[in-house]
Amino acid sequence: MSVGDVREAAGRIAGYVRRTPVMEVSPGLLLKLEGMQHSGSFKVRGGFNRVLTAGELPEAGVIAASGGNHGLAVAYVARTLGVRAEIFVPTVSSPVKVAGLRALGAEVTQTGAVYAEAYEASVKRAAESGALEIHAYDQAEVVAGQGTVGLEVLEQSGGVDTVLVAVGGGGLVAGITAAVAGRARVVAVEPELIPTLHRALEAGGPVRVEVSGVGADALGASRIGEIGYAVTAAAGVRSVLVSDEAIVDARREMWRSYRIAAEHAGATAFAALHSGAYTPAPGERVAVVVCGANTDPATLL
Amino acid sequence: MSVGDVREAAGRIAGYVRRTPVMEVSPGLLLKLEGMQHSGSFKVRGGFNRVLTAGELPEAGVIAASGGNHGLAVAYVARTLGVRAEIFVPTVSSPVKVAGLRALGAEVTQTGAVYAEAYEASVKRAAESGALEIHAYDQAEVVAGQGTVGLEVLEQSGGVDTVLVAVGGGGLVAGITAAVAGRARVVAVEPELIPTLHRALEAGGPVRVEVSGVGADALGASRIGEIGYAVTAAAGVRSVLVSDEAIVDARREMWRSYRIAAEHAGATAFAALHSGAYTPAPGERVAVVVCGANTDPATLL
Ligand SMILES: Cc1ncc(COP(=O)(O)O)c(C=O)c1O
Ligand SMILES: Cc1ncc(COP(=O)(O)O)c(C=O)c1O
Repeated sequence: MSVGDVREAAGRIAGYVRRTPVMEVSPGLLLKLEGMQHSGSFKVRGGFNRVLTAGELPEAGVIAASGGNHGLAVAYVARTLGVRAEIFVPTVSSPVKVAGLRALGAEVTQTGAVYAEAYEASVKRAAESGALEIHAYDQAEVVAGQGTVGLEVLEQSGGVDTVLVAVGGGGLVAGITAAVAGRARVVAVEPELIPTLHRALEAGGPVRVEVSGVGADALGASRIGEIGYAVTAAAGVRSVLVSDEAIVDARREMWRSYRIAAEHAGATAFAALHSGAYTPAPGERVAVVVCGANTDPATLL
Repeated sequence: MSVGDVREAAGRIAGYVRRTPVMEVSPGLLLKLEGMQHSGSFKVRGGFNRVLTAGELPEAGVIAASGGNHGLAVAYVARTLGVRAEIFVPTVSSPVKVAGLRALGAEVTQTGAVYAEAYEASVKRAAESGALEIHAYDQAEVVAGQGTVGLEVLEQSGGVDTVLVAVGGGGLVAGITAAVAGRARVVAVEPELIPTLHRALEAGGPVRVEVSGVGADALGASRIGEIGYAVTAAAGVRSVLVSDEAIVDARREMWRSYRIAAEHAGATAFAALHSGAYTPAPGERVAVVVCGANTDPATLL
């Protein structure tokens, strides 16, 4: 994964994604407002890049497993490009989320008690149908697409020292790490209750972790992806942990001070600053990726 | 009121206000996200410019009448500059708003059944105390400060053809009209239920209007200010009217499609586009000022 891959992705998806704003909310503190992206998160970037790289698509269209933002994004991408989307979600998924996917025109299959089972079923189904699989994080085209967030941060900010990025399966952090290599440092931020990258860096490779807490619906991969681990470990990215309380506080502060809507995953990187888990050096310019806003606004206050 | 006045205001307030983002949400449609400003609306721009122009302040600090965004903004400005703020609000003002003003350190006086009576009382009080009055819209320094929104729109967008702006007492629209003179056209947008500028343009001068509807808490001036009328009439600004239903729809659409929080006044300009009351020509680049976000997020959906 190189900055060249990310640049190519940026060219490919330019007509399909929004260039979301970067706002300097106080001197040296910049927020990349990626919750304002189509479908409410950065995930459409990787989705578009995956599909547009594939060229001619199979009759069966695209397929993905996700009860969350990845599923919404894939459904949005498919609708935009006029192709079929089949989304596998675990049976526990909320009716609201399933309805949201269907409203975007996706075919939804509810199967398996947990995400991993829905994912297995989607892989099997893809083998039968020939649909193009879009992985939530562990696919080169997806990672390169997510990395375009990093290119935009550098362009729109005029340069920063540090980019704070939340981690689930590690597609976003790996893409951004590749995008800003040699120009800015990336610091990963994870909930204490979902330390996928943190544990992997300690263990010297991806390991299974328990998943719980407020970020679980979006950051709840049970192990970091191979690409996410390889790219961040090679670049010396470190992972800062934040408590659920810090995430909840940060999310509330973002609403109160900036009127920015963020879901818990979208407030996780900011939580590192707000809680003091990450303290910038004097004069350090820090960009925080606000990666998602798919949340009930009634819970923002 | 000239672009020079607005430029001077921009220099004066630069260290105190946020340069809020402009996002191109679809080709040729740009939103200026001024709800992310300090205190949740553009009103701090005029407030800072008024106070910073005055130089040495009286012991009594500043005084204003407003149960809404102007009051919040003046309280924020005073706290930032370390001066006293006295805010007069009508007795009908909600306890939540009064508490919000007090939380910002303002002294709050509840008096008079309606805004006009609270305003009269504040003028009397200012004459006694010597406090610097900050008018909500009809003061040159306030109008010039609000106009800085227009300068930023042009700078951040690389140029637009048209700027859509909501109108209450007309400070914002007049400032923006001066700021973009000769470079873009301004179209005023008003609720059908509060047509202050519309009626004034018909009558050839400011006239009293009835005030009601969803925008009343922020746009509810009962006549356009002298400056607001003079500047917009001279520039040939026209006023487009939108129904309350269009405003409510527009506000919901902004949340659903962009995850932008807007109060009703903040969604009024967008409502002109969304409802078709204003239809851009092919290729026309339009900037919409999203002027406020002081709203209960539970009501966004
Ligand atoms: C809002 C949000 N933030 C962050 C992530 C984590 O992304 P990744 O799995 O690429 O690390 C996700 C994943 O779904 C997400 O939805
Ligand atoms: C959010 C918002 N928009 C627009 C306006 C109207 O501004 P003006 O009175 O300068 O026309 C106000 C005034 O309070 C406001 O609070």
